[in-house]
Amino acid sequence: MEEEVEMNNQKEKSQKKNSILVDGVILNGPVADSKSGEKFVEEVSKMIMEEVIKKASDATEKVCEWQSPEKLRTLLDLELKDTGENHPKLLQLCQDVIQFSVKTYHPRFFNQLYAGIDYYSLAARFITEALNPSVYTYEISPVFLLVEEAVLKKMIEYIGWEGGDGIFNPGGSVSNMYAMNLARYKYFPDIKEKGLSGIPQLVLFTSEECHYSVKKAASFLGIGTQNVYFVKSDDRGKMIPEELEKQVQQARSEGSTPFFVSATAGTTVLGAFDPLNDIADICEKHNLWLHVDASWGGSALLSRRHRKLLHGIHRATSVAWNPHKMLMAGIQCCALLVKDSSDLLKRCYSANASYLFQQDKFYDISYDTGDKSIQCSRRADAFKFWMTWKALGTTGLEERVNRALALVRYLVDEIKKREGFQLLLEPEYANICFWYIPPSLRKMEKGHEFWEKLSCVAPIIKERMMKKGSMMLGYQPHHGKVNFFRQVIISPQVIREDMDFLLDEIDSLGKDL
Amino acid sequence: MEEEVEMNNQKEKSQKKNSILVDGVILNGPVADSKSGEKFVEEVSKMIMEEVIKKASDATEKVCEWQSPEKLRTLLDLELKDTGENHPKLLQLCQDVIQFSVKTYHPRFFNQLYAGIDYYSLAARFITEALNPSVYTYEISPVFLLVEEAVLKKMIEYIGWEGGDGIFNPGGSVSNMYAMNLARYKYFPDIKEKGLSGIPQLVLFTSEECHYSVKKAASFLGIGTQNVYFVKSDDRGKMIPEELEKQVQQARSEGSTPFFVSATAGTTVLGAFDPLNDIADICEKHNLWLHVDASWGGSALLSRRHRKLLHGIHRATSVAWNPHKMLMAGIQCCALLVKDSSDLLKRCYSANASYLFQQDKFYDISYDTGDKSIQCSRRADAFKFWMTWKALGTTGLEERVNRALALVRYLVDEIKKREGFQLLLEPEYANICFWYIPPSLRKMEKGHEFWEKLSCVAPIIKERMMKKGSMMLGYQPHHGKVNFFRQVIISPQVIREDMDFLLDEIDSLGKDL
Repeated sequence: MEEEVEMNNQKEKSQKKNSILVDGVILNGPVADSKSGEKFVEEVSKMIMEEVIKKASDATEKVCEWQSPEKLRTLLDLELKDTGENHPKLLQLCQDVIQFSVKTYHPRFFNQLYAGIDYYSLAARFITEALNPSVYTYEISPVFLLVEEAVLKKMIEYIGWEGGDGIFNPGGSVSNMYAMNLARYKYFPDIKEKGLSGIPQLVLFTSEECHYSVKKAASFLGIGTQNVYFVKSDDRGKMIPEELEKQVQQARSEGSTPFFVSATAGTTVLGAFDPLNDIADICEKHNLWLHVDASWGGSALLSRRHRKLLHGIHRATSVAWNPHKMLMAGIQCCALLVKDSSDLLKRCYSANASYLFQQDKFYDISYDTGDKSIQCSRRADAFKFWMTWKALGTTGLEERVNRALALVRYLVDEIKKREGFQLLLEPEYANICFWYIPPSLRKMEKGHEFWEKLSCVAPIIKERMMKKGSMMLGYQPHHGKVNFFRQVIISPQVIREDMDFLLDEIDSLGKDL
Repeated sequence: MEEEVEMNNQKEKSQKKNSILVDGVILNGPVADSKSGEKFVEEVSKMIMEEVIKKASDATEKVCEWQSPEKLRTLLDLELKDTGENHPKLLQLCQDVIQFSVKTYHPRFFNQLYAGIDYYSLAARFITEALNPSVYTYEISPVFLLVEEAVLKKMIEYIGWEGGDGIFNPGGSVSNMYAMNLARYKYFPDIKEKGLSGIPQLVLFTSEECHYSVKKAASFLGIGTQNVYFVKSDDRGKMIPEELEKQVQQARSEGSTPFFVSATAGTTVLGAFDPLNDIADICEKHNLWLHVDASWGGSALLSRRHRKLLHGIHRATSVAWNPHKMLMAGIQCCALLVKDSSDLLKRCYSANASYLFQQDKFYDISYDTGDKSIQCSRRADAFKFWMTWKALGTTGLEERVNRALALVRYLVDEIKKREGFQLLLEPEYANICFWYIPPSLRKMEKGHEFWEKLSCVAPIIKERMMKKGSMMLGYQPHHGKVNFFRQVIISPQVIREDMDFLLDEIDSLGKDL
C-alpha cells in the first residue's frame, strides 16, 4: 500500500522527511499551487473593483445586456470538461459572467424588492466568503455567533418586545415556515414525534395579498394549501380584520382548528400593511399565533417617521424581517424573530446530534445555537447587516428608509401630473403601482377592449427596456387588475433624476403602442 | 408635500434640475458617498488578501485564537448604536473579526466535513457577492441559471442517470427535506392541497448512522420522528439490507404506509456507505422512493478509483450531494438531484406567483426555475462550483479526492503503528475515527473504569488544542462507543507532515492524562 520514495524536498514544510507514495499519490508537498491561486483571486478582485463596484453608481451604464437563453448559451462556454482551463481563459469567463449578468446594484434597477449596493455589507460578505464559517457551534464560529446574538437583540428591541429569540435563515419563505411549524409545535408539542396524524385539522389565515410562500409553507409542512384561509383585503391591499374574525369562526364551526395567522407588513405587490393591532386583538381573543411577515416592511421600524406603518407589531408572536431588502444587506439576510424566551425554537427544532453538540465541551454550550435551526451548515448572514449598521448607525439606516419613501412621494406626484400615467393606489411604502396608458388608448372607454389592450402594454415596454438595457422594473396582473408596473425604490444611489428618467423612458418606449 | 428649493447642482447627474425637498429629504444627489465606500471595500479586500488568503496555506499560523464567549464579548465592540463608526474603527473591527475567527481553511483544520481554501470558488464567490443576484427568473439571473443547468446536468451524468432535474439549495438538510416531500407528493399528490389528513400513516426508513437532518425533516414535514424507522447498521456503519426489509414488512403489518428510504453515502461520523444496490432492490420490490443522502460521499463519484463506494447510486430516485464538503465549493453549495424528468419538482413546489413568474414574458419561461424551489430569493450557489470545475477539470477534482483518500491510508497506517492510538474501524472514506489512549490507561483492563476514563480524554485534549490553537479536530461519543476523535481529510493543502504532526500533537497534549 505504501512505498517510501526518495525525492527532493520541494517545500520548507516537508521538514526533511522522505516522500510517501500511497495509491499513486505523492503525499509530501501540497498539490494546490497557492501562489498561482492567490494571484488569480487578486486578478478577479481587481476586475470586480473595476467592472462592478466602481460602475455601481453610474446610471449611464447598462442595467443589463439582454441575450436570449439560446444565444447566451452560445456566447458562454458553459460546458464542464475533463481538463481545466488556464487563467487567461478563466479570467475571460469571469468577464463574460459580469458582462451578461443583470446589474442589480444599478441606480435604475427597480425590478425586485432589493436593489443597490451597500459597500459595508459587501466588504463583510467578502470577509465571510474568505473565512468560510458555518454558524452552528461557538467552537467554529465564535465571532459570528456573538454578532448574530447582537443583531437579533437589536431587531427585537425595534419590534418592541422585552426579550425574545431568533435565527437568521435562508429567506423570508423559510422564516414563514419556521414560524408556522413553531406555532403548531407550541399548541401541539406531540407533532414533533407523532406528526399530524391524530391532530385535529389545523387551519391558518392570511390575506389574499400575502406572499406566496405562506401557501408553499402550508404544503411543505403537510398542512395543505386548502387549509389556508385567504382573508379578503380592502382596496388598499390590507387584510380586513372583520373578515378574519368571520373566517376564524367559520373554520371553527366547520370543525377545524385555527392556530396561526400570518399578517403581512409590506405586501409584495402593493406594499400594503395589514392592521396589526386589530389583527392582534382577534388573535388574542381566539388564542392564535400571530406571525407578521415583515420581510419587506420590517425595515420601516428603524424610521421614527414611518414605523407607525407597523403599529401593533410588538403584539406579534413571531416576525419575519429581511434586511437584505430595504436595508441592502445582500442576498440573503433574513431573520425569524420570536417573542418567546423559553427556548421554544430549540425545543421545537433540536435533534441533539452528538457529533456536533457535545455536552461535555469546555465552554458554555448555550452558545451552540445550531440546534435551533432546520439547517446543519448555516451561513453567517447576520454579520453583513451588522457591519452596515455599525458603519451607518441606526440614524443612517433610518435616513435611507426616509429617503426611499420621500422619493416615492416625488414619483407619485409626478405620475399624477403626467398624462398617460395612472396610479393604482396611493402607496404606503416603496412599491408604486401604476399603468402607462399609451396615446392610442387614452380616449378609449374603459371597457373590456381597453383593459385587454392595456394588458399588453407593460410586457412590450418591459421587453423593449430589457433589450435596450436602460432600466428594469417589474409588471404583473393582480387580482383582476390587468398588467401594471410595480416600481420599487430602495437604493440611496437613486436620485430624483432617475425618477424623471423612468417616466420619460416608459413614455418613449411605449408611446407608439 | 413638496417644495422646490434652489441649490447648487453638486452632481453631473442632476442635469441642471432644481433640487427637490420632500419630507425633509433632498432628492437630488445620492446620499451614499460612493468614492468613500469604494475605498473601504478596497481596503478590506487588501486586508483579506494579506490576513486570510496569503496565510491560508501556512501551517505555522494558529488555527484559532480561543477566547471564551464572555471574554470575546468584551474584546469585540458588538453593540449597534445610533451613530455610525468611522473607517479606521470599522477596519479595526474587520481585523478583529478575522483575528478571532476560526481559520477553517487552515491546513490543520480537520474539525468538520469541510475545510481548506479553493481559490477559484472563492473568486467566484466574490463575483456573486458583488453582483448580488437572486436565482429565480432568467430575466434577473440569465448567466447563473444557465450555469446551474450546466452543473446539474454534469452531476446527473456522474450519478449515472440518463436525465433528471435538480436544484441548488441551502444545505444537505434542506435537500433531504425536498426529497422526502417530493416522494410523498409523488405517491399522494393530494397532499399538496389537502395535507396529511386522510392520508394513511406514512413511514420512512433510514439507518441508525444517518444524518440528524432526516429526523428534523420528518418532524418539519409533519410526518413525526416516531415514523422514522432506524434500520440497524453493521459494525462498519452500513445499513443492513435484510433489516431494512424486515422493518418495511413490519411497518406494513402494523398498518403503516412505507414510502421513502433515505440511504446514506458517507455517514457523518464514520464515513460509511450504505449498500445502495441491495437497498435499491428492496425499494424496487416494495415501490419505495430511494433517496441517497450523498451530501458527504457524493464527491467520490468523480474518482474512478473510489466511485465504487457508491455502486448502485444510479438506481436512486433522488440524491443529495454537497460540493461544499469534499470539493471545497464554500458554504453552501448543495444540490438535490432527482431522476424524474417529468417536471415533478415544479409540480410539487409551484405556487405560480404572478408578480414573478409572468406567463406573457418575451422569452422561454421554462428558464424561470424559481418555482421549483421552496425559497423565493435563492443564491447562485452552483456558480462557485462551476468555476472550480472549469479551472481544474474533472481530472483535477478527481485528483483531489484521490489525494485526500491516499492521505487517509497514510494516517491509518501510522495510527496502527503508534502505541496509544486505536482505530475504531478501517475507514472507507475520509473520516478516520480513533481513540488516543494515554500512557496511564494503556495497561488497564478494558472494563467499565477504562471506558469511563477514556471518555474524558478527547474533550480535554480538544480543549488544550483549542487553547493552543495548533489544530482542530472533532470528537464525539457514538452508539455506545465513548468519546473518540474524528479526523476528516479534505484539503489539498494538507500534506503528510500534517498527519504526523496531528498524531505527535495529540500525544504531546494528552500523555499526562
